[in-house]
Amino acid sequence: MTEHFPGEPKSAHMLTRVPGPATEALRARHNRFQDARSVHYYQDARKSLGNYAVDVDGNTLLDVYGHIACVPIGYNHPALLEAFRSERFAWLAAWRPALGVAPPPEWVDLVEGPLMGCAPQGHDRVMTVTTGAEAVENALKAAFAWKARRLRGGASWTAEDLQLVMQNRQPGVNALKVISFEGGLHGRTLGALSATRSKAIHKLDFPAFDWPVVPFPANRFPLDAHAAENLEAEARSLEAVERALREGGGTVAALIVEPIQGEGGDRHASPAFFRALRRLLTDYEAAFIVDEVQTGLGATGTFWAHEQWGLDTPPDVVTWSKKFQLGGLHLRSEFAPQEAFRLFNTFLGDPLRAAQAEVILEVVARDGLIAHTRATGELLVAALSGLCDRMPQLFSGARGAGTFAAVDVRDAPTRDRILDAARQLGLEAGGSGDRSIRFRPALIFGARHVNEALDRIEAAARSLS
Amino acid sequence: MTEHFPGEPKSAHMLTRVPGPATEALRARHNRFQDARSVHYYQDARKSLGNYAVDVDGNTLLDVYGHIACVPIGYNHPALLEAFRSERFAWLAAWRPALGVAPPPEWVDLVEGPLMGCAPQGHDRVMTVTTGAEAVENALKAAFAWKARRLRGGASWTAEDLQLVMQNRQPGVNALKVISFEGGLHGRTLGALSATRSKAIHKLDFPAFDWPVVPFPANRFPLDAHAAENLEAEARSLEAVERALREGGGTVAALIVEPIQGEGGDRHASPAFFRALRRLLTDYEAAFIVDEVQTGLGATGTFWAHEQWGLDTPPDVVTWSKKFQLGGLHLRSEFAPQEAFRLFNTFLGDPLRAAQAEVILEVVARDGLIAHTRATGELLVAALSGLCDRMPQLFSGARGAGTFAAVDVRDAPTRDRILDAARQLGLEAGGSGDRSIRFRPALIFGARHVNEALDRIEAAARSLS
Repeated sequence: MTEHFPGEPKSAHMLTRVPGPATEALRARHNRFQDARSVHYYQDARKSLGNYAVDVDGNTLLDVYGHIACVPIGYNHPALLEAFRSERFAWLAAWRPALGVAPPPEWVDLVEGPLMGCAPQGHDRVMTVTTGAEAVENALKAAFAWKARRLRGGASWTAEDLQLVMQNRQPGVNALKVISFEGGLHGRTLGALSATRSKAIHKLDFPAFDWPVVPFPANRFPLDAHAAENLEAEARSLEAVERALREGGGTVAALIVEPIQGEGGDRHASPAFFRALRRLLTDYEAAFIVDEVQTGLGATGTFWAHEQWGLDTPPDVVTWSKKFQLGGLHLRSEFAPQEAFRLFNTFLGDPLRAAQAEVILEVVARDGLIAHTRATGELLVAALSGLCDRMPQLFSGARGAGTFAAVDVRDAPTRDRILDAARQLGLEAGGSGDRSIRFRPALIFGARHVNEALDRIEAAARSLS
Repeated sequence: MTEHFPGEPKSAHMLTRVPGPATEALRARHNRFQDARSVHYYQDARKSLGNYAVDVDGNTLLDVYGHIACVPIGYNHPALLEAFRSERFAWLAAWRPALGVAPPPEWVDLVEGPLMGCAPQGHDRVMTVTTGAEAVENALKAAFAWKARRLRGGASWTAEDLQLVMQNRQPGVNALKVISFEGGLHGRTLGALSATRSKAIHKLDFPAFDWPVVPFPANRFPLDAHAAENLEAEARSLEAVERALREGGGTVAALIVEPIQGEGGDRHASPAFFRALRRLLTDYEAAFIVDEVQTGLGATGTFWAHEQWGLDTPPDVVTWSKKFQLGGLHLRSEFAPQEAFRLFNTFLGDPLRAAQAEVILEVVARDGLIAHTRATGELLVAALSGLCDRMPQLFSGARGAGTFAAVDVRDAPTRDRILDAARQLGLEAGGSGDRSIRFRPALIFGARHVNEALDRIEAAARSLS
């Protein structure tokens, strides 16, 4: 397998414990003004390279966490550095424009080129924003506008609508609902948060819309050992979705789902499950929103994870962010509101980050990084399965699509101890759900990194006993 | 008065009508994938300079609209270009980090330096996000967390809270409310949008929380000619606020207000009004959120507009974005949630845009641009008053703080015709509310630009008859 990042460190190399003294000194300064309790370490942005993060204590860590899945082609990729140092980005250097008012002409090139070039099949509109939460908020708004118009039989608003909406009481509208899944994470603004069902700490004390929640099937792995059980779980989930649609009595505007639940514990479902969801939503006239904020841009071995479902009809809206460096959504044209200024805000994204996305997409295509990630992912899941076989008392449930992979640990405290011990051995990894270890490496993650990561996890696990 | 942008064009210079043929050709391409109906023109990012925007048809326009108030120190300021071309930004060039997980050490410098250096008096915490809407969403969340804890007498959550919150039904929480003002604009995500009361088109078909709305006093100008009337309007508004607080029965978590309503028609209120609001909110134990997304960073002649109110106790939360190039909020420490991960998201802003903000703040301080804007604003409002005196059948209500200024036109169609005619003469200006013309120039706007802008508006008005 070729190296996709020549010159990167040969392996992790540790000088201190992590967090080390330089990190703790910075955290003490940082905590005075911001909550820095969540910081793993302060990262030397110049020295980090490829799959390896270098922290301010001089530790070099193999990074499979990737800033919560936001690093597409590794740290300090030469193509991105060159773009910054050349005049390539000169047209967007010196201010952040309102892209809905006076965009530079290069913006149209970006929209026509990379942003539509990666559009999901059947999607012919794109909206850019800056974060995943904003992408989800606008996807929900697109679905509400579409559904409300259908409920009016295509008619425009009444005088009563126009008046009462200013009191937040437009007739019928507050009854509109979005179905989401237990364990789903779709963002933390109040609309997106109403669809988020990850952890209580994300939601406590914040008002939420009264929308229905349904169980996610949560396939058990290996699939062939749990086929009947998984089929039943999916059937129960689909029944709950249909019940919510039926009980909604026409008020359900959308269902939103991650192709693989990320924060929720790397929970998977089968292509057949998603095809059945698509059919149900068509039948009940609700929008099918696929939230690819964490899965998009190749991590699962296809550009979009939902390509693996074999859908007859595409999703209605697809949201994305993270590896793209900005947020956005693609839509089928019937889901784009008819009137101007319906999905609008001041910045509408950030052309600088979109220009970075263009460079990233070029590198991904040039280097064949999605096929590479598919191949690396097979090695990774096989290696995780081997780990489960060797240490069945600790590890189980190896699973993944591409390098979007995970393995379960016996219990949460043990998982946390293994993660910490692995970090001391030079592996930056994160948890997922209650007791999983998640892999969210960059698309340049290769066979040798799989071996190194698994060695560290196994050594960490053995160090516990 | 000194020139703050040497080398900028001597005046506007028009080659075609705006929108011109090159803009329309780009719009046709752009509209295939995005809604480009709102675009005024496509702007040549390299040729635009200082206060002057150059469009793709080669027209040079004096810009007092400033990308909806987002341009702080003009186009292609040498300090920003130099920062981009030097190694100053090298530490953040090649990926967008998760600032809550592994920030670079330079981030701590940015927080300690420019981000806290500009903190409102009495504020000791700062959170960064990417847009004004996200700033408002997080300000509301901070207020809800603060209020809910007070309502529990400082206690933590019950087992019932932890369970029901996952169904969006945490007891008591969905009754929490935010008071906002008629005409206010606070963003378009579903939480912020529930507090937004600008125009129906912003809100139609989108579910909203059932929160109370109260009238904004909307001072009439000149102030001395309408003193009694304005006092009465403010008293009525304060009565409505107190009624909403009283009727809320302890469920009101916050009130959010712009210092000057921007989108809502450049509506002002007196310092005494805001001091009375502050007292009411303290009495009823609700957070006072001042939304300075459009007014912050000097446009009103002080760094924060609320500095002009003479408050005894500072606002509890202040939100900002636009001229900063990213979004954020400052908080008094008691409004920062106690637990980690309460106000959190993946990116938590964008260090590249924060680094630009640092350069901008340095230029603003070095060149004394806030005092300059205060002086220029006096000239601008005086010139607008002169216009009202000369053409009282068309213009009235000249008003402003710093260069955040406006004038009313007889009616909406006439306003729109004047704006279009002025644009053909080389002035890029925008509307505000139903029938006002708004000024949101950069802080380098000076006396000669005031003269040029007023000449164009007057000529445009005379051309109508």
